[in-house]
Amino acid sequence: MLEQRNFGVEPWAVRETGLALGELGHAESVFALANGHIGLRGNFDEGEPYGQPGTYLNSFFEHRPLPYAEGGYGYPESGQSIINVTNGKMIRLMVDDAPLDVRYGDLRSHERVLDFRSGVLTRELEWVSPAGKAVRVRSERLVSLVQRAVAAVRYTVSAVDQPILVVVQSELMANEDLPSSGGDPRVEAALLNPLRPEAHFLDDSGVTLLHRVQHSGLRMAATMAHDIDGPDGFQVHSSAQPDIGRTTVVCRLQPGQHLRIVKHLAYGWSASRSMSALNDQVRAARTIARYHGFEGLLDEQRRYLTDFWAGADVEIEGDPQLQQAVRFALFHVLQAGARAERRAIGAKGLTGPGYDGHTFWDTETFVLPMLSHTVPEAAADALRWRQSILPQARERAEQLGLKGAAFPWRTVRGEECSGYWPAGTAAFHVNADIADAAIRHVQATGDAGFERDVALELLVETARLWMSVGQRGPDGTFRIDGVTGPDEYSAVADNNLYTNLLAQRNLAGAADACERHPGRAAVPDHEIASWRAAAADMFLPFDAKLGVHEQSEGFTSHAMWDFASTPVEKYPLMLHFPYFDIYRKQVVKQADLVLAMQLCPEAFTPEQKARNFAYYEQITVRDSSLSAATQAVLAAETGHLGLAYDYVCETAQLDLGDLAGNTEHGLHLAALAGAWNGVVAGFGGLRHLSTCLAFAPRLPEALTRIAFRVRWRGRRLQVTITPGHAVYRLLAGDDLDLRHHGELVTVPRNGSLELPIPAPPDVEPVRQPPGREPLARRVREGQA
Amino acid sequence: MLEQRNFGVEPWAVRETGLALGELGHAESVFALANGHIGLRGNFDEGEPYGQPGTYLNSFFEHRPLPYAEGGYGYPESGQSIINVTNGKMIRLMVDDAPLDVRYGDLRSHERVLDFRSGVLTRELEWVSPAGKAVRVRSERLVSLVQRAVAAVRYTVSAVDQPILVVVQSELMANEDLPSSGGDPRVEAALLNPLRPEAHFLDDSGVTLLHRVQHSGLRMAATMAHDIDGPDGFQVHSSAQPDIGRTTVVCRLQPGQHLRIVKHLAYGWSASRSMSALNDQVRAARTIARYHGFEGLLDEQRRYLTDFWAGADVEIEGDPQLQQAVRFALFHVLQAGARAERRAIGAKGLTGPGYDGHTFWDTETFVLPMLSHTVPEAAADALRWRQSILPQARERAEQLGLKGAAFPWRTVRGEECSGYWPAGTAAFHVNADIADAAIRHVQATGDAGFERDVALELLVETARLWMSVGQRGPDGTFRIDGVTGPDEYSAVADNNLYTNLLAQRNLAGAADACERHPGRAAVPDHEIASWRAAAADMFLPFDAKLGVHEQSEGFTSHAMWDFASTPVEKYPLMLHFPYFDIYRKQVVKQADLVLAMQLCPEAFTPEQKARNFAYYEQITVRDSSLSAATQAVLAAETGHLGLAYDYVCETAQLDLGDLAGNTEHGLHLAALAGAWNGVVAGFGGLRHLSTCLAFAPRLPEALTRIAFRVRWRGRRLQVTITPGHAVYRLLAGDDLDLRHHGELVTVPRNGSLELPIPAPPDVEPVRQPPGREPLARRVREGQA
Repeated sequence: MLEQRNFGVEPWAVRETGLALGELGHAESVFALANGHIGLRGNFDEGEPYGQPGTYLNSFFEHRPLPYAEGGYGYPESGQSIINVTNGKMIRLMVDDAPLDVRYGDLRSHERVLDFRSGVLTRELEWVSPAGKAVRVRSERLVSLVQRAVAAVRYTVSAVDQPILVVVQSELMANEDLPSSGGDPRVEAALLNPLRPEAHFLDDSGVTLLHRVQHSGLRMAATMAHDIDGPDGFQVHSSAQPDIGRTTVVCRLQPGQHLRIVKHLAYGWSASRSMSALNDQVRAARTIARYHGFEGLLDEQRRYLTDFWAGADVEIEGDPQLQQAVRFALFHVLQAGARAERRAIGAKGLTGPGYDGHTFWDTETFVLPMLSHTVPEAAADALRWRQSILPQARERAEQLGLKGAAFPWRTVRGEECSGYWPAGTAAFHVNADIADAAIRHVQATGDAGFERDVALELLVETARLWMSVGQRGPDGTFRIDGVTGPDEYSAVADNNLYTNLLAQRNLAGAADACERHPGRAAVPDHEIASWRAAAADMFLPFDAKLGVHEQSEGFTSHAMWDFASTPVEKYPLMLHFPYFDIYRKQVVKQADLVLAMQLCPEAFTPEQKARNFAYYEQITVRDSSLSAATQAVLAAETGHLGLAYDYVCETAQLDLGDLAGNTEHGLHLAALAGAWNGVVAGFGGLRHLSTCLAFAPRLPEALTRIAFRVRWRGRRLQVTITPGHAVYRLLAGDDLDLRHHGELVTVPRNGSLELPIPAPPDVEPVRQPPGREPLARRVREGQA
Repeated sequence: MLEQRNFGVEPWAVRETGLALGELGHAESVFALANGHIGLRGNFDEGEPYGQPGTYLNSFFEHRPLPYAEGGYGYPESGQSIINVTNGKMIRLMVDDAPLDVRYGDLRSHERVLDFRSGVLTRELEWVSPAGKAVRVRSERLVSLVQRAVAAVRYTVSAVDQPILVVVQSELMANEDLPSSGGDPRVEAALLNPLRPEAHFLDDSGVTLLHRVQHSGLRMAATMAHDIDGPDGFQVHSSAQPDIGRTTVVCRLQPGQHLRIVKHLAYGWSASRSMSALNDQVRAARTIARYHGFEGLLDEQRRYLTDFWAGADVEIEGDPQLQQAVRFALFHVLQAGARAERRAIGAKGLTGPGYDGHTFWDTETFVLPMLSHTVPEAAADALRWRQSILPQARERAEQLGLKGAAFPWRTVRGEECSGYWPAGTAAFHVNADIADAAIRHVQATGDAGFERDVALELLVETARLWMSVGQRGPDGTFRIDGVTGPDEYSAVADNNLYTNLLAQRNLAGAADACERHPGRAAVPDHEIASWRAAAADMFLPFDAKLGVHEQSEGFTSHAMWDFASTPVEKYPLMLHFPYFDIYRKQVVKQADLVLAMQLCPEAFTPEQKARNFAYYEQITVRDSSLSAATQAVLAAETGHLGLAYDYVCETAQLDLGDLAGNTEHGLHLAALAGAWNGVVAGFGGLRHLSTCLAFAPRLPEALTRIAFRVRWRGRRLQVTITPGHAVYRLLAGDDLDLRHHGELVTVPRNGSLELPIPAPPDVEPVRQPPGREPLARRVREGQA
């Protein structure tokens, strides 16, 4: 048994050598393959051992009960949970009389490589059975970014030094056993064996299983077919049962001989299509896959990724680990969004069961800005999904006594699934975040058709929401009382600055969009005027005595959290202290006001940004993975480049290093996108100003060069940062006006512009709560 | 079948004539008998039909799961629910071949009377079986206020016009079927058949059943024995099984003959005593009951009540309905507290299963002031119970990261059972309410021993809590942030005025008590000084522009609830609008700041009281039964005597008239005590000032005379109010200094003092939200 696991540092891959059985769940998330429609966790081909078996289809869910000790009006009674669907990646191997299982026998070597340029997960192992028979296995697994319904495995088994008889059982398995989550037994019961068999088919080409989910009523189909290459005399047999399809290959291998099986998989699901339609649909996809063959799928995959990296790559020199982590982040965000196609991009993508597979605000705030600049069609599709759930959001608003649309805090398919309203329903900022992503996407793409057909409706309905959530105070300002901002260590407060600023943008953005598309939304002039007036009169709480903005009205009057008496093992605070005490004190879980300074850069003077950042930095404990990236961006802007670097490293390593200890439940997509944000918006200083795109590039000491590529209104722009200079190069598209450290410049078509980088300001160091320094720094200083 | 039910208006009784099967639950609560230890709902002797079968023992409970859709630190995982124990009031009757059941045959007459002076529930009926056999039944039921463990029924059955053969089955029945509550199925399952049989005994004298509760582990015993008087030849047989004990009497009755059975019942429970000890204990109690006989028990009961009324009666002339309702209220509050003896007085007393039998803050704030002035030993015992749960309260404080003791928001035996922290844990005012009740009790009784042995510890531990809940703000004031006051339509707000004022009293009261009993509590001087300083610097939010106090900081900046667009059927609001929207608007469920004005009369000027009352009156919707009484008191104080009268009528009629529509779940003890408060503190103007007792008597137009009796430091004082004059008469005790409408006067020992009542001030009418006028007025004006 190989006990040591190691993730090697390479620029274009994650390579695992060795194996640690206690860390399988972590590796399964890291090695997950997905295309936004299908997700396969990095489980072993042979199924066991596992941390968490996982095969997912985007938005394919079952209802789960939401129980309350004391109920209330408007509490959702039922939630949605994505479920583990029919496992098609299973290929078991029997070597003479022993099943391949890494827990038994002698595992001589075990290596897995996830390659960011080929999009393939390769596994190679050499194993000696308890009876002394050696075998080599190589498997290559891909989830096609080009054929949305298709995945494939090429499985090769070789005899090493003795003749062996091998049996390969390639399977479709529904209702796998899952480890207990340790949660509410009623909820577990509701999600046990969620797939009801509807039909199973065996034909010359393969096996197909159809299932339906009991309460959600959704129907799915999975199918497989095999191309087999081996020594003469191998035999093949297939069978189908309600919950299992099996193709068995038996073959005698002499040393040096191998058996190679290509397994073509296709998946589909629908809420409305008939069983026969779905059956035909997956068979057609399987037919296309076999038509291409494994090499053909591989070629398509490589071409797709080559194009992606051409428009999205971030090069980092001076820190190979960060280089790897940022590409890892880009690759997984691509996998989550590439082919989601008007379905949600979940907080964990399709890499694990965490958060029930729900989508939250952070998709819009962290993931979509990156996609709008790198894979804009994926961002547009994610917003089209939001548009598609407007009926549910309108209904929710009505239920809450509000106008317009109230998007769910967490959901799979549109219905509110939050069971704790102070950090759910009350977090209305999700609506402004969706609006902001739509505005940002239109700015980045210049796509007037998208604005007219998608963004406009989202903006109008959310603007109407704000007009009913907010109200005029006695002093005439527009107030938004009793809501929760991004920081989940405060809740249900008046005039959360982030919420008010984003609502202001939402209202103004809706008015702008209506005026750009007159008549389209049928919004009367007086309503547009009321949006502009509310935006203009928005109340923004500021503590004149301290000279800082207040996270919410009255925030700076609250007691400081007693950081000095809080030992490191008491973090995250919410596991050790009651919400009651956390909410009423000055302690911040995650960037809130600081995030507002990134998203609304023109609402603050540079001096305010510096003072605000220093003030909130000392009370921000980063108990959320959504914080470091934003702190990086503002640290960079306010001149704390070393700190920004530490935060970028933290967010980039979050999943590779399992820093939060829960990567086994799935990757943290927003934190991964945050690594891109940290580099591009932090060191690159990318901002959308009201008039143009802006950059303020600066390199932290640890790095020697950064180059990143972004799309902007049909252009491809590369920004290269070296210690004294920045070079803007247009790889495609017209002349581009932008601001470089505040100065308006023009990058010429087909050309580049090299500009000096002004020296960073002298700044007083800022400090974090004791023990909550960036993890990179804690590691360096031996505290972690 | 008699379909019309009528509760007759009598000064000393509630008499029900007729019967309405749809209102059985209401009547069962109204006719409940209890002594604070045992509670028997007014179920029919024959068990069926019923609204809700109910037999309770104070604090005898089972654990119930508290599920959460999303859990949190410090959330209680298990609650406590009082359970329906072995039913000993059951006496079934077979008339020839037909069981007596009011749903069948012909019910010629049916009358029940609850007599406040005898403490007996009498039922008389005449019934003709489907086979045409007529029978008369009279049952008299009592729960002894003198013998704590004893209840008894005298059951008489007579033949009317034909000979009949009757079989009487007198039973002890455990684990009765209960109607479904329609709640969480897991919770229902946990409370289904909660009693596990431990032993059952049959002896010459009767039957005894012992049971244990599965999860709470509590053990109970019930026993019965019978004295039977009938025509020659009746036969008796008894049997015992695990869940049922039965004594059967068979007898032939000629017209005019009767069979009379006296059923002696005794109950006991314990968390620690052995089965044999408990068995002996209930048998001993049963022996005492038989020794007294039914007439003996009845005599004791009458004497006890005569003494009670001598010290507590409230006479009202001019409104017979109010006279009855106020005595009904006094009687039921007495039944809840009389023999509770260091157990909790629940919100429903022992009259129904509502609120799981929990005790909340309102026992201290509404019930104990009445008891301290009428049955002081019951108030003292209720506070001794609080002292007995200090270990749990200290543990809870520690869990919450606080000092001192944090009493539970709702509980049976001391552990926090609230499943919604914004209206549970955050409602810290319960601690100041307990302190206030202790201070008030010491003031009312002058009991220095109680202060030293009980109040001191309660005050010190709650004062310590406030020092850790509150903190100094940037301006040096003492602030209490993020808590919930009495008004449950606001939550988790800063500086709730009620909480801050009551905490101020708590801190000062603790300091006073420590100084009166130096050395006893071992509190260092500097700690006492810190309490005085915090009390002195307490922040009390006031809106200078409006000239009114703020219910909490920022309250008057919030949007007004849109009362005009809220139709009457949308009340209570919490069933039709989300907490989110309710919390952030100016709408008040129940008196909060107005209650503070009653409890802390010296913290406000008369002008402030008038302005505050008018302001909050217009936004108070009275969706809680805890509001009308307090509004009555402040309406009277600010000169709105007609309004005060309407509110007193409303609170007094709450249960008799089933105004909230849920009396079937049990009586509203605090609202009943509120009727006393409305009369005594409202029309009588009783206040505890820092220096002395004060009255400000005034009669509303509808009444011609009020006389009430209160105890004060060993005295019995009668206050009589007539239109122009008030007479203070000392029925017992020394000279008494008091204030009459502000003027210091002395009532002489054994004498009286007649004083003129100043004319009430001219006042502008105040108004309520549309449709939320006092019910009495709505009825008069034909709106309800």
